[in-house]
Amino acid sequence: MTVSRTAQDFIAAPRRDGIAAWRKIADALEADITGGTLMAGSQLPAETLLAERFAVNRHTVRRALAELTVKGLVRATQGRGTFVEARRLPYPIGPQTRFTQNVAREGREPGAALLAAAHVRADERIASLLALRPGDPVLRLDTLRSADGVPLTLGLSFVPLPRFAGLEAALRLHGAITPAFAACGVADYRRLETRVGARIALPGEAERLDLAPGRPVMVVDSINVDLDAVPIQATRALFAADRTEIVVQS
Amino acid sequence: MTVSRTAQDFIAAPRRDGIAAWRKIADALEADITGGTLMAGSQLPAETLLAERFAVNRHTVRRALAELTVKGLVRATQGRGTFVEARRLPYPIGPQTRFTQNVAREGREPGAALLAAAHVRADERIASLLALRPGDPVLRLDTLRSADGVPLTLGLSFVPLPRFAGLEAALRLHGAITPAFAACGVADYRRLETRVGARIALPGEAERLDLAPGRPVMVVDSINVDLDAVPIQATRALFAADRTEIVVQS
Repeated sequence: MTVSRTAQDFIAAPRRDGIAAWRKIADALEADITGGTLMAGSQLPAETLLAERFAVNRHTVRRALAELTVKGLVRATQGRGTFVEARRLPYPIGPQTRFTQNVAREGREPGAALLAAAHVRADERIASLLALRPGDPVLRLDTLRSADGVPLTLGLSFVPLPRFAGLEAALRLHGAITPAFAACGVADYRRLETRVGARIALPGEAERLDLAPGRPVMVVDSINVDLDAVPIQATRALFAADRTEIVVQS
Repeated sequence: MTVSRTAQDFIAAPRRDGIAAWRKIADALEADITGGTLMAGSQLPAETLLAERFAVNRHTVRRALAELTVKGLVRATQGRGTFVEARRLPYPIGPQTRFTQNVAREGREPGAALLAAAHVRADERIASLLALRPGDPVLRLDTLRSADGVPLTLGLSFVPLPRFAGLEAALRLHGAITPAFAACGVADYRRLETRVGARIALPGEAERLDLAPGRPVMVVDSINVDLDAVPIQATRALFAADRTEIVVQS
């Protein structure tokens, strides 16, 4: 008589905590992912096939996949299966932080879409960041940035008006912020400060970033200043945490 | 005649999606929290009282509280109610990154507990980070760091052996890593690189950090080097994202 899969689980796993089997599978799949055997974007075999390969039951496979999902290594989709997330894009933060360069350096194709642009009044926080008075006019820009077509960041930027009245048109023309600033007379600019937090994406944010509900984002607040150290841009960008990693050299 | 604030809001809000009421309440409570009217650690009024105060039903209040929970501003507990999270501790990252100073600077009491220490063999990742060979002996330190008794970071550090054979005893004696390194002959050290990612805390991690299930952590990988630029410490620290914010000056 053969021992059932369920019984095997009980035998193989330490009886006290019973975690050995699923963790072993999770570790094996993680090694395959980080080692490149399971490539980014590829679909994992069905649960039944994984259960067969590891000689465990589907419940154990599901537990292992849940662990990989929590770690952001795979993404489960409704009905379409489970996919390997791309390696997190290392995103250097420093005086010269440029999205286009950061993505291109990794051999990936940077993309940026201007979702919305509006003339609004600075609230207290934005006014303080841009050295303006509350109520001063600012241009608000909503952008979605991507690598190889996969969304990476959802950004909300504020720039002073009337100084950058031409920025929206320049941005639509050039498709990136650095040449758009140049067209508005800012030959160069630098990052003054960056603050990084993390939270769960709100439903609308998750949808824009093509994230499953409940996935985390890094909240990256930054200030750019021109060569005279005058603030020109205050940005809050949400980074899809499953796809990016902030790198700080010091 | 003057239009009341409420009326203005209702006029401004799109009626189609019906999100105005809960969002207004969430924004009002968020302003109370960030403005300090609702203090860190304090308990929010019961849902029924909030519903009365804002003249809405409990479902609407619940939706607003869910939004604040997702943002990490409040923490719902089983049966004990909803509490205001402490303001996120700004944690500067740079060449001189020191936990004790970072916490004390904010007027809070730093704490560190050594959870475990063990002599282990460096795996490939640790060996590469510490400029060792895989299999070389290293000291692994598990630490839990706190501010005012509230857990902030759960850390896993590796230091080379035999060079730092005395570090564990020094750490137990001094209670902080900088004087412990000094006792081992490292007069000063600096942070070479920091990588920041984010993910959901695994159950065991959430328990150690006193986080509700499903809350996010920042994963902060760092390398410290001595004055001769020799790597002395590779650390992976999980920062409770509801309680901390990384600050990078550039």
